[in-house]
Amino acid sequence: MTICAAFEAVRERSPLTHCITNTVVTGFTANVLLALGAAPAMVDIVGEAGDFASVADGLLVNLGTPTPEQREAAIDAATAARAAGTPWVLDPVAVGALRVRTALAQQLLALQPTVIRGNPSEIIALAGLGTGGRGVDSAHSVEAALDAARSLADRYGSVVAISGPIDAIVANGLVTEVGGGSALLTKVAGGGCALGAVIAAICGAVWHTDITACEATIAAHAMYSAAAELAESRASGPGSFAVALLDALAEIAPSHLASIPVRHAAEALR
Amino acid sequence: MTICAAFEAVRERSPLTHCITNTVVTGFTANVLLALGAAPAMVDIVGEAGDFASVADGLLVNLGTPTPEQREAAIDAATAARAAGTPWVLDPVAVGALRVRTALAQQLLALQPTVIRGNPSEIIALAGLGTGGRGVDSAHSVEAALDAARSLADRYGSVVAISGPIDAIVANGLVTEVGGGSALLTKVAGGGCALGAVIAAICGAVWHTDITACEATIAAHAMYSAAAELAESRASGPGSFAVALLDALAEIAPSHLASIPVRHAAEALR
Amino acid sequence: MTICAAFEAVRERSPLTHCITNTVVTGFTANVLLALGAAPAMVDIVGEAGDFASVADGLLVNLGTPTPEQREAAIDAATAARAAGTPWVLDPVAVGALRVRTALAQQLLALQPTVIRGNPSEIIALAGLGTGGRGVDSAHSVEAALDAARSLADRYGSVVAISGPIDAIVANGLVTEVGGGSALLTKVAGGGCALGAVIAAICGAVWHTDITACEATIAAHAMYSAAAELAESRASGPGSFAVALLDALAEIAPSHLASIPVRHAAEALR
Repeated sequence: MTICAAFEAVRERSPLTHCITNTVVTGFTANVLLALGAAPAMVDIVGEAGDFASVADGLLVNLGTPTPEQREAAIDAATAARAAGTPWVLDPVAVGALRVRTALAQQLLALQPTVIRGNPSEIIALAGLGTGGRGVDSAHSVEAALDAARSLADRYGSVVAISGPIDAIVANGLVTEVGGGSALLTKVAGGGCALGAVIAAICGAVWHTDITACEATIAAHAMYSAAAELAESRASGPGSFAVALLDALAEIAPSHLASIPVRHAAEALR
Repeated sequence: MTICAAFEAVRERSPLTHCITNTVVTGFTANVLLALGAAPAMVDIVGEAGDFASVADGLLVNLGTPTPEQREAAIDAATAARAAGTPWVLDPVAVGALRVRTALAQQLLALQPTVIRGNPSEIIALAGLGTGGRGVDSAHSVEAALDAARSLADRYGSVVAISGPIDAIVANGLVTEVGGGSALLTKVAGGGCALGAVIAAICGAVWHTDITACEATIAAHAMYSAAAELAESRASGPGSFAVALLDALAEIAPSHLASIPVRHAAEALR
Repeated sequence: MTICAAFEAVRERSPLTHCITNTVVTGFTANVLLALGAAPAMVDIVGEAGDFASVADGLLVNLGTPTPEQREAAIDAATAARAAGTPWVLDPVAVGALRVRTALAQQLLALQPTVIRGNPSEIIALAGLGTGGRGVDSAHSVEAALDAARSLADRYGSVVAISGPIDAIVANGLVTEVGGGSALLTKVAGGGCALGAVIAAICGAVWHTDITACEATIAAHAMYSAAAELAESRASGPGSFAVALLDALAEIAPSHLASIPVRHAAEALR
């Protein structure tokens, strides 16, 4: 029920979603948000990012290609979002082995992201428990990252979402698993990065309602998985899948969410 | 007849179209120009942009993500274009609320853009008559922006094109309305930004002919609308629409333009 | 046989392919590499690019939109790749007329790229025998660039690949021609740039095997041509072609390579 309410909120309110993201996925991310019904705005320069974050409904900070200009803009935006109480998402792409973004990620953590989203290796590295994956690919399973996720959630008060064959969302000592989706998402540049933007959009859409950031994050994963399943059924490869995913995001209705397994599994943290 | 002549000019001359545009839409913009038959070149660094603008056939300056490097390159390019008499287009994305680009837009206006293209809120903010829209979305109707457009046209000698359900092109005290198109353009990142590049390409193609920049701008809107209509008829959502738009731009012929309503409506300014 | 072995190597080893490339084609390039089975990583900032190049399997340096940050990162990365013996590819986009990238290209040449890939005008300008083409388009035939390619190959020990209707790969005084492909590649932004990334990926996949960089470069051209032919047969324009190309890259098998003419033509250099 909460997932359906979050679903309707994003379509009705068209949340203004501020994205500071990497040059590889900017276009695809904006298209994902537009298809979903959100209003994307990529404002990533110093002198504008802070002002804009304070009026946006949600913010994504993705560390994929962090130029000096973007790094300063990201700090400004996250600071402004925190001051305004605006939900914001940190996506620590390839953190661990690469030192500039690793240092930046630690600065951003201190600004208490509402949601942290990454693959298992990124979550482990962000928690200081490992040195990251192979480029943007994960070298660990989702299960292997649960302790790191719990540690981050405890230290920063964040919801932590780990992407994998079955995603895990960790908050307040509880784990929720979201299945479904499509392996083709790993064959599309931005397949994971755009999910971070969807989380920011849905958190923004339900802000000031009874729906929590954790519930919004679960809803984002379920919606994205449902669209990916629909897209895979119509695709003949990674190119047509990316196109079909955008069509599917515009088309999915609450009824499509029924097939996505969402399982609350508190015991997974034991 | 003029529209058909402009149409043929872009296919025959393949105008070298210099784009300084935002990171969200660079790829899509280049693909739109290639599909149309133009030759795009995204040259946006200091030390090259000025030189290149002086040899290009047309120039687009789009303010979507204006880094310090791009801001300086934009001034260099617009200055060189003006000196060479090269037609150039200003697209003041999200101007108004965001202060860095708002200041830059005023500097660029002083260099007298051949064409200014934007949504109603951007045109109103650029004229100093409002504070802009909601991110990249307009908060005003096309009609509400006509006075602002006339003011800009009078002050800078520019053609001013306002995008909306029915576009309005204002120049020399006259308004021309171009209908048709597709609402799906608002669901594709770069749907509007790429039109700015098409205007630059067609102005570049007809430069040194009897066709005016105003006529070229009207032709650009009509061609883009015709392609969008064709694309919508083949699309099942925003993803497949963007793909179909590129195919349609490569396919359209003068006969497709017959269905696009173009209406000269001088009285609209009263 | 070597082409088939290179083909299998990229699928089996998923080479970590480090790309420093232009903002127009980052997304498309990453999607091409993912479709092929490689692991792309766009690491183009100072403080990370050098470290990353020393652990990557292959590196691409493409000069399409070289910001000051990217220029310094490119030097760091190429220096690190050379020190580690990692194969690296230089794509000198629009070199010649544009002075910043022309100066950078000369610095990079001194670091002895494993492969140089470009259109005829770029190869001629890089060798100091001409002033480049018209923006990113070539003003010369492949044949007209053979002497320039031989000169570059002799001076820097590089494999030199010239793109055109029939591609030519020059190394050690020998020319190999690769036919097939599709003219639609010239209508897709990144159609040529992504080939540079494919060369880097395949060189990376076969590094430490008996297959040479020249053979890997020929294999890259043959695979790309085979995928382009398959895509063209399914496309109805440049938009659907780009989508079909990604599907085809994921689908092609050694059997598809049979139709691509590969001809060793040592006499072409006489």
